[in-house]
Amino acid sequence: MVETTRHRVDTRGQGDVQDLTALVARVLKASSLESGLATVAVVGSTAGITTIEFEPGAVADLNRVWEQIAPRNGHYEHHLQWGDDNGSSHVRAAMLGPSISIPFDAAQLCVGTWQQIVLIEFDTRGRSRDVIVQLIG
Amino acid sequence: MVETTRHRVDTRGQGDVQDLTALVARVLKASSLESGLATVAVVGSTAGITTIEFEPGAVADLNRVWEQIAPRNGHYEHHLQWGDDNGSSHVRAAMLGPSISIPFDAAQLCVGTWQQIVLIEFDTRGRSRDVIVQLIG
Amino acid sequence: MVETTRHRVDTRGQGDVQDLTALVARVLKASSLESGLATVAVVGSTAGITTIEFEPGAVADLNRVWEQIAPRNGHYEHHLQWGDDNGSSHVRAAMLGPSISIPFDAAQLCVGTWQQIVLIEFDTRGRSRDVIVQLIG
Repeated sequence: MVETTRHRVDTRGQGDVQDLTALVARVLKASSLESGLATVAVVGSTAGITTIEFEPGAVADLNRVWEQIAPRNGHYEHHLQWGDDNGSSHVRAAMLGPSISIPFDAAQLCVGTWQQIVLIEFDTRGRSRDVIVQLIG
Repeated sequence: MVETTRHRVDTRGQGDVQDLTALVARVLKASSLESGLATVAVVGSTAGITTIEFEPGAVADLNRVWEQIAPRNGHYEHHLQWGDDNGSSHVRAAMLGPSISIPFDAAQLCVGTWQQIVLIEFDTRGRSRDVIVQLIG
Repeated sequence: MVETTRHRVDTRGQGDVQDLTALVARVLKASSLESGLATVAVVGSTAGITTIEFEPGAVADLNRVWEQIAPRNGHYEHHLQWGDDNGSSHVRAAMLGPSISIPFDAAQLCVGTWQQIVLIEFDTRGRSRDVIVQLIG
């Protein structure tokens, strides 16, 4: 059985991290599935999905490291191509990836108490994101 | 239902990025599946799969950042072990990962217009890669 | 069909890499499944799953690069929040991700001979990890 739902998540620009855990748990609860795989994906090439302990310190640390790896105000050939200012966003998003797949069992996601599923906005401006939650079981 | 297909993709060495989106779309179209999960995986430990806006600028930016993180001509213990010259390839591939899973719905992959599924060759020489496209739905 | 199993894997702290390939192959062999998707996930926000050529040189190279990206003894806001010393662990784990999904076909995982599925411990102390192996086929 496959259940695919789409959700709108508004973000506030680069470094904004949105906790999707409650959304995924709600979708799981609404389904009749006991055991299977939950995939969370964001549509677009300037955002990513991962898990983190969702507290302001860890989020700030992660953003600082992304800024060291691909600085927002660095030189990017992508900027020359389109006049965009989001070369750093594309690099970070390609490195992280747009989706995550997490097993669930006994109708519970296999994540820890201090582990949240998050959307990371890498784009330089706020976006209205399409997030797909798909359950297979 | 599970449909697994194998494809040969030739690459030109480190930094070569191959757009697999049309291949995956073709496999999806040839199947009878409407909704499910598409997994794209490359066999081997010196290449990776992700999504990116596939244009030369963004690809060059991503390659430049990988080169800063794990420089091709840096010192690698892997070189001492085997006489290889691809320590940078192993590090980059382990960080990125060899596969990606993307939902599809209404027989369409849930990706954006400017978001392509790509194979990144990290090895120092061109390779003939086995790429797996698997649909579950 | 979905088969979900849980396994305990003990680690020795930051940089310890555990080869899970034989475990996953054993679970696959014990199942009746021929073709499908194997997902391997670690519970928690300070460890990750990927593939690498599992030999000491490549593992040391990868650990060295993680140390450059997010140094263990760097400044982390997460430390101020909780008195923890594992800010580097959270950053690395969020960048790598807690799971990997690999197709299998003809009852064989689609990985190369020199490509192992590994758990990377990022936490600063040894942990007893819950690893989920889930087969869908």
